[in-house]
Amino acid sequence: MSEIHYPAGIRPRAEAPQKKENGKKKRVLKVSAGNRGMAFEAEINETNDYYREKGLAVFHKRPTPINIVKVDYSRGAKITEAYFETQSTTDYNGVYRGHYVDFEAKSIRGKTSFPLANIPPQQIDHLKRVLAQGGIGFFLIDFATKNTVYLLPAEYVIDFYEKRERASIPLEEIEKHGKVVPMAYRPRYDFLPLIDELFL
Amino acid sequence: MSEIHYPAGIRPRAEAPQKKENGKKKRVLKVSAGNRGMAFEAEINETNDYYREKGLAVFHKRPTPINIVKVDYSRGAKITEAYFETQSTTDYNGVYRGHYVDFEAKSIRGKTSFPLANIPPQQIDHLKRVLAQGGIGFFLIDFATKNTVYLLPAEYVIDFYEKRERASIPLEEIEKHGKVVPMAYRPRYDFLPLIDELFL
Repeated sequence: MSEIHYPAGIRPRAEAPQKKENGKKKRVLKVSAGNRGMAFEAEINETNDYYREKGLAVFHKRPTPINIVKVDYSRGAKITEAYFETQSTTDYNGVYRGHYVDFEAKSIRGKTSFPLANIPPQQIDHLKRVLAQGGIGFFLIDFATKNTVYLLPAEYVIDFYEKRERASIPLEEIEKHGKVVPMAYRPRYDFLPLIDELFL
Repeated sequence: MSEIHYPAGIRPRAEAPQKKENGKKKRVLKVSAGNRGMAFEAEINETNDYYREKGLAVFHKRPTPINIVKVDYSRGAKITEAYFETQSTTDYNGVYRGHYVDFEAKSIRGKTSFPLANIPPQQIDHLKRVLAQGGIGFFLIDFATKNTVYLLPAEYVIDFYEKRERASIPLEEIEKHGKVVPMAYRPRYDFLPLIDELFL
């Protein structure tokens, strides 16, 4: 898999800072929302790797679509001009116990709600099609400041989105309609038991 | 979706030639295997678009993974150095009637067999994991010179691959274990009824 996957137009920031093990000049930088988003994605990828290795589920992150304009073939195949494109689907999908599973992972800066502005309209359209075909869909929402990740079913998000009464889903609604994803060392976020509980 | 999706190290050739409508200097070039492969991919994408629009199935081509090395942010986000990577999965997946479906489309130059060299080992590994999770997997094999496309279940391909007795699957075996995909105008290749017949 490629090392860098930035959404269109988003400038990457420095890697999430690590505490120095040797204790010298330990400088803990404040983790920015961008950093946290990338770290959360990495943790979900690790969780998926774990599930795959253990034969529990097969989930993959879809590669970021890139519009390639120029390729230099004089030295292998080096892409010299290309642009990020918007994913027309969610970022993750795969199979669990025969069922099609489709999900999106989002890291949120705020403490009290999940702004719908985080969801491009084509993701809602995609998830509606997935549910209509009998697939399972959900969001993994990381409230970074609370250190809590919720699994929220796509049904609820689509319904809230289409009512257009509010611009954000309040945390208390997420707590009511979703589930807290247990955190551990490996897998980092163990969301399979929540799929069993909520969808199967 | 991006316009150009070449596998790693493969130099693209000219677009598949079109017959000129005006009749002037009609020059029909011989379609190369590379051309045909791209044309076949485009036809599968069109078929998937049709299924999606009609609400019959949700299949997408996974974007080609790109390893991004340099991005120039002085003018938006222009990727100035990047390289093609190998897909660690098959090219297509999605959901049909609640079932997870995973498939690969291959265009073959020869007339009598499907060389296993067309299948990278990681695709076999991936399809084994998919089948172990109860997903549906298959290959769409286009014998360009015969103008015939076959749907061949992944079970059979994996079994043949792992026996390692022969380097190619003979056409008569494909005809025995697979099904001819009916061709039409829209959808170009109507393979959903074959999924019903073979897997459901």
